[in-house]
Amino acid sequence: MAATVYLVGAGPGAPDLITLRAARLIESADIVFYDALVHADIVAMATRAEKVAIGKRCGTHSTAQRFINKRLVDAAATHARVVRLKGGDPMLFGRAQEEIDALRSAGIAVEIIPGVTAAQAASADLGIALTRRGVSRSVAFATPRVGRGEQPSDWAACLAHADTAVLYMAAHEASDAAAKLLSLGRPARWPVAIVESASLGGPRRYATLEELARDGLSACSGPTLLMFGEVFRAALDRARHHRGKPHDRGAPAVQASR
Amino acid sequence: MAATVYLVGAGPGAPDLITLRAARLIESADIVFYDALVHADIVAMATRAEKVAIGKRCGTHSTAQRFINKRLVDAAATHARVVRLKGGDPMLFGRAQEEIDALRSAGIAVEIIPGVTAAQAASADLGIALTRRGVSRSVAFATPRVGRGEQPSDWAACLAHADTAVLYMAAHEASDAAAKLLSLGRPARWPVAIVESASLGGPRRYATLEELARDGLSACSGPTLLMFGEVFRAALDRARHHRGKPHDRGAPAVQASR
Repeated sequence: MAATVYLVGAGPGAPDLITLRAARLIESADIVFYDALVHADIVAMATRAEKVAIGKRCGTHSTAQRFINKRLVDAAATHARVVRLKGGDPMLFGRAQEEIDALRSAGIAVEIIPGVTAAQAASADLGIALTRRGVSRSVAFATPRVGRGEQPSDWAACLAHADTAVLYMAAHEASDAAAKLLSLGRPARWPVAIVESASLGGPRRYATLEELARDGLSACSGPTLLMFGEVFRAALDRARHHRGKPHDRGAPAVQASR
Repeated sequence: MAATVYLVGAGPGAPDLITLRAARLIESADIVFYDALVHADIVAMATRAEKVAIGKRCGTHSTAQRFINKRLVDAAATHARVVRLKGGDPMLFGRAQEEIDALRSAGIAVEIIPGVTAAQAASADLGIALTRRGVSRSVAFATPRVGRGEQPSDWAACLAHADTAVLYMAAHEASDAAAKLLSLGRPARWPVAIVESASLGGPRRYATLEELARDGLSACSGPTLLMFGEVFRAALDRARHHRGKPHDRGAPAVQASR
């Protein structure tokens, strides 16, 4: 059977932020494999398909990834149109290459459909562009998460040299991440925007780098982005202003802005 | 009139790579302003709307930007649903903030609809993920273009510290950009992928950083991305292998792979 496996970006969360091409492929799929973060309404669009939940919420271990690779290869032997739905953009922090390589090694055709990634949705939510004339013309995305058996690369140096920097999957190590950026010379007052469940109306907070290093983050219920850069300065100042009086300064600085 | 202006990402090029939300807003718009790079089939989806072409192909001068801001503010006085279509993602290299600020200053509601950016489409086209376990977990996007009266920020330092680096709007200064990355310590053999008209079947080429610094790029007919990183190593080696015999070494190294 000449099957094709489609690695499809499910976008940042909101079901109408998938692409037209993604929607058509999901609707016509014979089998759909989906990650935990893909919205139920997107999975429900696969009216013809067998639906299989795979993937964990917080990263996937190597063993699990090899199992997923095998499931996709096996599905291509029995289904003509296989859709693998991945939250966000499959090519950013999605371990897509391991799936592509496994499928190609097995002689199976693969197509990739890009998707809007969380940082783009967060920027839209906030109404703050990631680039801005005279302020930012470089943007970096990174994650501090290290896979099992993997050497940590220097994600922090990349972010420290970017005008606007976004850290994925870092809520549990927000304080350490901020401390690392401070140690690399980023200013104590570097503005930070913290966006949870981008495109789904999650809370947004602002802080300075120093405050984030000191206080970390309280529990986040959805996927959370840490965004750094001067582009967030005016929003940080507004959040401060609304928070009000001078004696508030001793209060936890990382606060909800709505 | 309680108008809303929607800044809508038109995606990387292919008309079916816009989001469902974007498509619905375009279809229901009263007036649509669109950039030169937005595909004609996307503009044609605006069946109800007055359609206005604005924006230049290669960046926009400040004066022109102020004129665009005014057009949007004026349109909100006479049309309830104003759509401003921008190629790619409005919040990345789209000068969206200037339009957002102008509209908000005039008391006009603004919503932003994110879109797939060219780098994501190029990654999908190539079948090469921007991040990869053990190879890349930081990705940077930048542009060397400087607006009139703007200080150049250090885009190159950001890219030089990224595992995977993407340069937008740099085809005309590819050689200089590569030389700058070499001078910052990136290796001579750092792989480069050159993707033209991502998502629209444009040519793709591979080179090393040293070759790009030496040869630059011949004329590109569409918007062109320069992408750097070890994730492109295997594709570069394959392109070399296909190019064949040792005596080819004197030929221009930056060649089409299809």
